[in-house]
Amino acid sequence: MASLDSVLACIDLNLERSLGRLTELVRIPSISTDPAHKGDCRKAAEFLAGDLAAIGFDAKVADTSGHPMVLARHEGPAGAPHVLFYGHYDVQPVDPIELWTSDPFEAMIVENEAGEKRIVGRGTADDKGQLMTFIEACRAYKAETGELPCGVTILLEGEEESGSPSLLPFLEANKDALKADIALVCDTNMWDRETPAISMGLRGLVGEEVVVKAANRDLHSGYYGGAARNPLHVLSEIVAAMHDETGRVTIPGFYNGVDEVPLQIKAMWDGLGFSDEAFLGAVGLSIPAGEKGYSVLEQTWSRPTAEVNGMTGGYTGPGFKTVIAAEAKAKISFRLVFSQDPKAIQENFRKFVRDRIPGDCSVEFHEHGGSPAIQLPFDSPWVGAAREALTDEWPNPAVTIGMGGSIPIVGEFKGRLGMETLLIGFGLGDDAIHSPNEKYELSSFHKGQKSWARVLDRLGRGV
Amino acid sequence: MASLDSVLACIDLNLERSLGRLTELVRIPSISTDPAHKGDCRKAAEFLAGDLAAIGFDAKVADTSGHPMVLARHEGPAGAPHVLFYGHYDVQPVDPIELWTSDPFEAMIVENEAGEKRIVGRGTADDKGQLMTFIEACRAYKAETGELPCGVTILLEGEEESGSPSLLPFLEANKDALKADIALVCDTNMWDRETPAISMGLRGLVGEEVVVKAANRDLHSGYYGGAARNPLHVLSEIVAAMHDETGRVTIPGFYNGVDEVPLQIKAMWDGLGFSDEAFLGAVGLSIPAGEKGYSVLEQTWSRPTAEVNGMTGGYTGPGFKTVIAAEAKAKISFRLVFSQDPKAIQENFRKFVRDRIPGDCSVEFHEHGGSPAIQLPFDSPWVGAAREALTDEWPNPAVTIGMGGSIPIVGEFKGRLGMETLLIGFGLGDDAIHSPNEKYELSSFHKGQKSWARVLDRLGRGV
Repeated sequence: MASLDSVLACIDLNLERSLGRLTELVRIPSISTDPAHKGDCRKAAEFLAGDLAAIGFDAKVADTSGHPMVLARHEGPAGAPHVLFYGHYDVQPVDPIELWTSDPFEAMIVENEAGEKRIVGRGTADDKGQLMTFIEACRAYKAETGELPCGVTILLEGEEESGSPSLLPFLEANKDALKADIALVCDTNMWDRETPAISMGLRGLVGEEVVVKAANRDLHSGYYGGAARNPLHVLSEIVAAMHDETGRVTIPGFYNGVDEVPLQIKAMWDGLGFSDEAFLGAVGLSIPAGEKGYSVLEQTWSRPTAEVNGMTGGYTGPGFKTVIAAEAKAKISFRLVFSQDPKAIQENFRKFVRDRIPGDCSVEFHEHGGSPAIQLPFDSPWVGAAREALTDEWPNPAVTIGMGGSIPIVGEFKGRLGMETLLIGFGLGDDAIHSPNEKYELSSFHKGQKSWARVLDRLGRGV
Repeated sequence: MASLDSVLACIDLNLERSLGRLTELVRIPSISTDPAHKGDCRKAAEFLAGDLAAIGFDAKVADTSGHPMVLARHEGPAGAPHVLFYGHYDVQPVDPIELWTSDPFEAMIVENEAGEKRIVGRGTADDKGQLMTFIEACRAYKAETGELPCGVTILLEGEEESGSPSLLPFLEANKDALKADIALVCDTNMWDRETPAISMGLRGLVGEEVVVKAANRDLHSGYYGGAARNPLHVLSEIVAAMHDETGRVTIPGFYNGVDEVPLQIKAMWDGLGFSDEAFLGAVGLSIPAGEKGYSVLEQTWSRPTAEVNGMTGGYTGPGFKTVIAAEAKAKISFRLVFSQDPKAIQENFRKFVRDRIPGDCSVEFHEHGGSPAIQLPFDSPWVGAAREALTDEWPNPAVTIGMGGSIPIVGEFKGRLGMETLLIGFGLGDDAIHSPNEKYELSSFHKGQKSWARVLDRLGRGV
């Protein structure tokens, strides 16, 4: 424990310096979905590879057909397990930019009424801040002991926020380099600010863009209105038809592979003291909008969804334009659970849409990635070891929970490399990731580093 | 007739010069709905007032709380009627700009395969090209005869494409100056390129912008999806509910004041040889989308509509963003017929929407103008006189038709100033007004000028 204690002390001592490094990383606007930021994605990858090399990793920027990967390796003591840490250096777009209270790419420390400090900026939580907790833990370990307690491979992706198109080919081409005893991912939330959590399940994701085309040009709604098909009406009817009045998704076959959560798991979730009112109230809502008969935790952890993430068509600028648009578009995503098949969801959805397209209209689909859900075995020894380590760091014991989000790579680690993944993250529900004024608690950043030092130490002693 | 013949010859001789003046006017990007073009709207008004003063009108630019009016007056011979000509110098936005084949604000003469020349540019038809046909007729009359055959007042508005907010106050404040025996408007179409038309009916218009608000910020669809209300779903359901499966609008009270067209009028319309297939086929459609049981002419001339003109929410940029938007917006317009009441339509629509807003969401409405439909008496002597004059100019006799579009002022001329309006325009159905590559036939511009010379001459001789 002597060496772990000194590593933890080293982390405390170097908090300001670690914040400086995070600030530098946040400053690089690595928005992967926007082609204008291609160069910034590479810059972020190079920054991280350089930083890992400075720590002592064998680190490189690996090209892909999209944004590059960062791949770094450091051997561990003989007999110790080897872990693969995965994170992503790309971030979400910042629009609507006018709702930010400070420059999204200048990380700012702000303090709330309760005296809690948080780091505000795009990616401070998702995932730059989170991934840096792991890197800082490695840095402190090396600085204090000259080694790492486990072998560590680090894979940092630049396309997580845009469907990860290069990830599978990279995984296939680098199977040997990536194979490890367990994968670690830091892209999830704590249960609350005093209770760390290990996520046992993650929803999968299918993204589809739908373009409905009617007339061959925009039409004047006076001359043509009443006779010409309006693609915004067609698309709205399709969106409205996706759910029935109980909130259930109506796409045929959609619930194939969806299991009910076992009663003992439901009981555990009920025991977490989760408040639907507080969860929804924090974002200004009060009525659970999903499937009737399920709690909010069930709706977000164990039920699949169909959501429109964006929709546009016709004139949307200031004022008014009496036009019937030639086309209407929607970006629609599905969150998957248990063994729902992403390919089948995509096919059934496309058929559902095509069945509702009038004879003289057409529809185009553009796919934006698909990944199955994952579910960890509840008796995993890795989970037990990580719970112990996390419980040592935080005021409350670690809990095992579900997760509504999707991290596409986790299913692939399981399917292609035969690895389970420990999902340990230090985000909070109000971090506003993907939204204006994204933040990461300073305590998450600080105690997150110490948590990883403890987890690495614990895993290094075997499970 | 001697003086009319010389006026017509003068128009022929000066076609190039009149095209030059139209080109200058088109060059001013007077997009009234976009605040960035406020200065351009004034510039267009000043250009026109200057041109009318040069002809010999007592012309001025009259300020309003929005874009200015052009008001010009020229007395006629004693005993001759006085006409009020109305047009608008503002134009629609040009987006999507990438679909234009030339600069929208540089009028270009292009020739199609059939050797027909047309003027391409924003406003060449709607309404800069059309209003200039009247001004050029006045110019030629003055040049050849030193006078005009009728008294003429010209009112040119700069807010027709953005709901005409200043028009009613201006009308009220200038009743005496505007009162005339008949109003003339040049903002409509011919029946076909060889057949002039007088429009006997015009649909009214109500414009509403609806903003549905759910959460107090954009949400991550992983964390919140399945529990949080998605305003794009709410809005889509409202849009989908606006029509039943027969294409009928479902808003309660919507059809109050809607008459069926008399059988003899239906018979006249059937005799026009209108082809639904050709009308829809020209824009790439084949299936009439409106109310079942009505012909396309009935759907567009005598039936009311509810159309979404624009809709947006969530992430609509390149790539994908798994967000649940905080709000969703739609611009929705209603075309009114017969005696439908704009105020009642607005109120019934707003109630229809509010009834469908979940308890924890809210809705905002922004109004974008409202005007009733108008319908001319079929036995009007002014119509008879104008038909004679137009028939003299064109290969085919003039016909009297309906109109799907809306020109808000026409109802106000009737209601507030007690004037009927002759709607005589030289546009064609394929002019692509409000769309990319708007054009105006050179023959419309040229013979339109001569048509107005003939109409003024004919009206000057009394009806």
